[in-house]
Amino acid sequence: MSNYYLRPAALTLIVLVLGCANQSDTDLGATVGRKVILIIGDGMDDQQITIARNYLVGSQGQLSMDTMPFRGAVQVQAIAEDDPSKPVYVADSANSATTMAGGVLTSRGRVGTTAQTDEDIVTIMELANAAGMGTGIVTTASITDATPASFIAHINQRYCQRSIDMVRMNETFPQFSTDCSRDYKANGGRGSISEQIAASQINIILGGGADHFDDFIEGSFETTVLEEARSNGFKVIRKRSELTRLPNNKKIMGLFSSGTMPVKYRGVDGGEARLIAREAGQVKWPEPFICEANPDFENLPTLAEMTRVALDHLDNHAGFMLMIESSSIDKESHYRRPCGQIGELSQLNDAVRIALDYGESHPETLILVTADHGSAAHIISHTSSLAPQNYATPGRFARVLTPEGSIMGINYASNDSPLWDEHSGVQVPIFASGPGANDLPTFIRQADIFNISASHLGLLDTRLRK
Amino acid sequence: MSNYYLRPAALTLIVLVLGCANQSDTDLGATVGRKVILIIGDGMDDQQITIARNYLVGSQGQLSMDTMPFRGAVQVQAIAEDDPSKPVYVADSANSATTMAGGVLTSRGRVGTTAQTDEDIVTIMELANAAGMGTGIVTTASITDATPASFIAHINQRYCQRSIDMVRMNETFPQFSTDCSRDYKANGGRGSISEQIAASQINIILGGGADHFDDFIEGSFETTVLEEARSNGFKVIRKRSELTRLPNNKKIMGLFSSGTMPVKYRGVDGGEARLIAREAGQVKWPEPFICEANPDFENLPTLAEMTRVALDHLDNHAGFMLMIESSSIDKESHYRRPCGQIGELSQLNDAVRIALDYGESHPETLILVTADHGSAAHIISHTSSLAPQNYATPGRFARVLTPEGSIMGINYASNDSPLWDEHSGVQVPIFASGPGANDLPTFIRQADIFNISASHLGLLDTRLRK
Repeated sequence: MSNYYLRPAALTLIVLVLGCANQSDTDLGATVGRKVILIIGDGMDDQQITIARNYLVGSQGQLSMDTMPFRGAVQVQAIAEDDPSKPVYVADSANSATTMAGGVLTSRGRVGTTAQTDEDIVTIMELANAAGMGTGIVTTASITDATPASFIAHINQRYCQRSIDMVRMNETFPQFSTDCSRDYKANGGRGSISEQIAASQINIILGGGADHFDDFIEGSFETTVLEEARSNGFKVIRKRSELTRLPNNKKIMGLFSSGTMPVKYRGVDGGEARLIAREAGQVKWPEPFICEANPDFENLPTLAEMTRVALDHLDNHAGFMLMIESSSIDKESHYRRPCGQIGELSQLNDAVRIALDYGESHPETLILVTADHGSAAHIISHTSSLAPQNYATPGRFARVLTPEGSIMGINYASNDSPLWDEHSGVQVPIFASGPGANDLPTFIRQADIFNISASHLGLLDTRLRK
Repeated sequence: MSNYYLRPAALTLIVLVLGCANQSDTDLGATVGRKVILIIGDGMDDQQITIARNYLVGSQGQLSMDTMPFRGAVQVQAIAEDDPSKPVYVADSANSATTMAGGVLTSRGRVGTTAQTDEDIVTIMELANAAGMGTGIVTTASITDATPASFIAHINQRYCQRSIDMVRMNETFPQFSTDCSRDYKANGGRGSISEQIAASQINIILGGGADHFDDFIEGSFETTVLEEARSNGFKVIRKRSELTRLPNNKKIMGLFSSGTMPVKYRGVDGGEARLIAREAGQVKWPEPFICEANPDFENLPTLAEMTRVALDHLDNHAGFMLMIESSSIDKESHYRRPCGQIGELSQLNDAVRIALDYGESHPETLILVTADHGSAAHIISHTSSLAPQNYATPGRFARVLTPEGSIMGINYASNDSPLWDEHSGVQVPIFASGPGANDLPTFIRQADIFNISASHLGLLDTRLRK
C-alpha cells in the first residue's frame, strides 16, 4: 500500500514526452493555468467509432473527434497477476484506467494498485490535488466503477465497491469473487471504493451509483457512505435540476441514478443482436431496425451537460485535471446492443464538442480523447458477401438501418455465452488538441497518457521527487 | 467505357487537399521530381497491426509504420451497384482500390469502372504515364488481382483475369460468376485484366500470377498474353535471380509464381484457427502454436526486395507513382491463418522501411501506408475473461504463443462457412511521411488518397482539364 515509483521503462517514456512539454512551456509560460481534459470512451475502438459515424452522421460525415488535429494509436497494456513480467494482450477497464491514471502497468481487475505486490499507485488526480489544482471526474457509469475508481481509489479488486462487497464468493463466475479484506479499514486499509471516494479530495465527481453510497460504512449500521462524504465537505446532488448554481467553494458529488446511468438510445421493438435463424437450411437474415430514444434517459443529465458543469466548476482553479468517461459504449457491446453503443458514442462526441469549445477560449487546455480497450462489435456485410446463402456469422448479429438508408451489419461473436461478449486486445485511437498535441508521437502506450497529462500539468517532477 | 470525370463531392475534397499541395509546392519548387509511394496492406486494419506487432516486436515494441510522423483514419467507401446513391458499409479490394486509384466511388467487385454505368475511371497510373512520369506496381498477389488491377485496368468484374474467365457461371457461389462480355476485344472492349496489363504503359510490375499470362489471348490458340506483353516492350522475368541488372530502358514484368505468391510464415504443425472443442461440457482450449518459415517462400523475392528493385528502376524518372501491396494479410485472414497474416504484415513493414529509407535520401517523396478494408481476425482473451468455462467463441479460434512468452487469442467469427471469413467495414489507418504529410487531415475518405497522391504529383489539373 506504499506509493509505487516509476519504473525505468516508464522513465524512458517521460523523456520522450517532456520534449512536448518543453514545447508547450515555451508557448504558454509558467503563469497560465495548465488544464487537461481526458475523455475516455470505454471500449471505443475503431469499429465502435465507425459504427457510430455511419449511423449518426452518415458514411460521408464526420464526428467532432474526426476534426481534431492529432490522431494516433495507443497500445493497450495489461500484465499477468501471477507473473508481472508477462504481457496480457486483452485489458479490462480497471487495469487500463489505472495505467492511464498512474503511468504504471497492472493486472486485470486492479484499481490503482500494482500487480502481485498490491502497492498503491499515485494517480494524476492525487498529484493535481496535492499541487493545488482542481480535479474532476464525470462518468455515465457508477462513480465507483472501474474507470472512475482507478483515478482516485486503490484496491486490489474492482468489484469491492461497497464495504459488504469486499469479501464475496461467486461460484458461477469465480472471476467476480472478491477478497479485498486487506483493505478493510479495520485492517489498516482505505476501505471500499465508495468509502475511498467519500474520503477523497476530488473537487467534482458526477455520474451514477447512488446505491453504493446509500449503504453503510464499514462496521456501522447507522452512518451511510453518503453521510461520510458530506462530512468530508461534499455537497451531494441527485437530480439534473440541481446542476445549476453549484457553490464554487464546495466539493460536488452528483449521483443521478442507482447504478450505471441509463443509455440514450435503444433499438426499436427491442432490436439488438441475436443468433441467426435458418429456415429450410437457408439463412433468415434478421429484420433491420432503427434506434430510438430510451425513455429512461429522459430526465437525466447528458454527459455533455455534466461536462459543461464540471468545466464551470473547475474553471476558477489554477489548472485542473478532468476525466470524462462514456462508459456504456463498452457495456452495451457486452450486451450486444448496437443502438445503446451508438447513443453512448454520441454522448461522448457531444462531450468532445464541449471540450473543444472550451479549448478554443482556453488555449492552455490539452484535450485527449481515447479508449481503455477494444470491444466485440464488428461491422460485417449485412448479408454474406463470400459464402453461400446457408452460411452466416456464428455469433449474435444485428442489422441496423441507418438514416442514410443502408443496412449496417454488426456482429458480436467473441463468446457464445447467452450473457456477454468480451473485450478485444486491439490498439485504440487517441485524438488530441491543444498545446503540444501536434508533437505527440503517433504511436504511444497507455502509460504515456499519464506521462503526457502529468507533463502538461507540470506534475511529473512532483512525482519523481516524492 | 468513356472517361469518368470528378463528381462535385470529389471536388470538395480536392480543395482541401490542394492546401497541402501548395504547402509542398513552396517547399520543393517545380523542378524537383515528385514521387509517391503508396503502400497498401490488404485487409490491414488496427486488429491486424496489433496482432503483428505483438508477435513481431512484442507489445512494448514498435513497427516501422508506428514511427511515421502522421497517422490518420480512412473511411472505407463502397456504393451499391443497383443504387449508387446508397453507401455499402463493407468494401472489397476491387472497389476500394479503384477509389484510391481514381478518386471515384464504385461498387464491390468492379475494377476501374463506375457502378451501374460501367464507365472507365482514369487511374493515377494512367495520369502519371501521360505526364511522362514513371509508374510501378509491386504485389504479393497475382498482378491481375483486384488491388493491382484497379490501378491499371478497367472492367466490370474482378474475376475476369483471363480471356476464358470473362463469361462464366458459378452455381455454388453466384457472386463469383462473371459476365465481362462487353469488354471482349471483339466487342470493342479492352479485353481481360491480363490482356490490359500486357497492353499497358506501366514501367515496372512485379508479383505473382504467371498462369494468367501463359494463357492465350482472346480468339487465339497460338499467341499467349505473355508474348503480347513482350511485343509491347516488356522484359519478362520469372525468377528472383533475374531481379538484378534490369535494363533501365525497358518496361519490366516480373511473374514469380503461378498465382498468389506463397506467404512468409505458417503455423507450426499446421497451426491455424479452428472451431472450439468441448470435453464433458467444458471448453478444451486449443494448443498454442508458434509461427515458422514457410518453405515455399524460400526462393521467392520478398516484398521488400521487389520494392527496392522498383525504386531503383523508377529512380531515373522525373517523378513516379509506385503502388506496393501486401495482399495476403487479407487472404490469410479469409483462411483463418494468423501466422500467414503476421508474416505478410511483416513483409509490408519491411517494405515500409525500404520506402522510408528512400524518403530520407529523396525528400520529395510522399509515402502513404494504408489498407483497403478491414478483416475478420480479432484479438480476444486466450481464455474467456467473462464467461464460465463452458463458453468460448462461437467462431474459429487460434492461440498464438508469442516470442515474449504470452498467449494471444485470435478469433475469426464473421462467417460459419468452412471456407472463408469475411471483410469488416471498420475504418482503416493511414500513415504518411514526406512533404505535406503533417498537414493532412486526420480523418479522410478513400477517394482522398487519389486526391492527395495526384495533388502531390501535380496531376490534379491534368485530370480536370481532360
